Amino acid sequence: MPIKDCKIKKTVLIKNKDLVNLYGCTIDDYSKVGPFVEIQKNVIIGKKCKISSHSFICEGVKISNYCFIGHNVAFTNDKYPRATNKDLSLKNNKDYKMLNIFLEKNVSIGSGSVILGGVRIGENSIIGAGSVVTRNVKKNSIYFGNPAKFIRKI
Amino acid sequence: MPIKDCKIKKTVLIKNKDLVNLYGCTIDDYSKVGPFVEIQKNVIIGKKCKISSHSFICEGVKISNYCFIGHNVAFTNDKYPRATNKDLSLKNNKDYKMLNIFLEKNVSIGSGSVILGGVRIGENSIIGAGSVVTRNVKKNSIYFGNPAKFIRKI
Amino acid sequence: MPIKDCKIKKTVLIKNKDLVNLYGCTIDDYSKVGPFVEIQKNVIIGKKCKISSHSFICEGVKISNYCFIGHNVAFTNDKYPRATNKDLSLKNNKDYKMLNIFLEKNVSIGSGSVILGGVRIGENSIIGAGSVVTRNVKKNSIYFGNPAKFIRKI
Repeated sequence: MPIKDCKIKKTVLIKNKDLVNLYGCTIDDYSKVGPFVEIQKNVIIGKKCKISSHSFICEGVKISNYCFIGHNVAFTNDKYPRATNKDLSLKNNKDYKMLNIFLEKNVSIGSGSVILGGVRIGENSIIGAGSVVTRNVKKNSIYFGNPAKFIRKI
Repeated sequence: MPIKDCKIKKTVLIKNKDLVNLYGCTIDDYSKVGPFVEIQKNVIIGKKCKISSHSFICEGVKISNYCFIGHNVAFTNDKYPRATNKDLSLKNNKDYKMLNIFLEKNVSIGSGSVILGGVRIGENSIIGAGSVVTRNVKKNSIYFGNPAKFIRKI
Repeated sequence: MPIKDCKIKKTVLIKNKDLVNLYGCTIDDYSKVGPFVEIQKNVIIGKKCKISSHSFICEGVKISNYCFIGHNVAFTNDKYPRATNKDLSLKNNKDYKMLNIFLEKNVSIGSGSVILGGVRIGENSIIGAGSVVTRNVKKNSIYFGNPAKFIRKI
């Protein structure tokens, strides 16, 4: 069952309910979620956000109102990911320090971008397509590149 | 319904019809479309093209005959994407200037690449995997990198 | 049918069997495969690996035990991909030289990375998110960037 244990307002638009994987997340009024999107537990998405196709939003991410997430965007929450612990047992959620990500209101993330755990992106800022965001992003700014750098004020 | 209002020739091969999202697009003879692909309305794809898994092709893209699109490729058509307008109403198709992309014949786009709106890619050229194409690409050339730069003639 | 002709051990966890495309691959005990994953024929995946959502693993890839593959990761096996041969016939598997990729044990590949064909990644190494791996990676090392460069020993 691809939508499970979520708090999704009735006004949220998910056109292809059979082609998403959402569990334990919260999505507020009038937001849209495209196909081939995975959103993990405890993610919070505000009002009037657009989550485009093929994006992955991990636990630890909070997205404020009016944010745009492009296609093929990946958020991460583990700086040194591993499949197993040192004793070769499978890693669980409690076996690593989860890094949070916070998007202030009206942020746009261009398609194909990757956002590293621990980052805060300031309101109104735009991340250009294909960027890798490794540090905090100031508000009202355009960042671009791998790693993403300040380009100019909006 | 994941395939809707399309003009797709009978010789087109879509192995996993339940795992794509195609609407309002045109695909010519003998092309192939992989799983987890989204193709938006008014996209035109020529003959004998290969559209690999996980790729996203937005409105405004025209792909000529014999083109190869790798896996996880994203096309974009909006330079400054936003979820909402300044009055906080949800953005519609008519609320932004759509930038077209044109691939001439026999172009190859490597996996994981991002193609920015407004770009034209010349015939026979190859974009190396993981590139971000921000400008026009000359014909018979290899480009690579973020942003993609001219590497050599073919 | 999205899982076909595979040798998958009973202890392997695939939560969303309707949202993957696996064919002709081998997956060993206790590994996990996320949604929107494609794994091609002849791929071999070891024990206790984690293959995260939206990743694409092509023919020619061998992944040893305890490896972590992030989200939106793409492997490639063709240096100069084309949709057609010079006579404009559709390209088949026998029409190009397949380049293999080998991940030694306990390798981690960060989300959004692209791995080029012909590469070997040494044991315990970590590829940072959003990297493009174009050359061999030494063991016990962190690499990052496009193209991925040596950052430091672990």
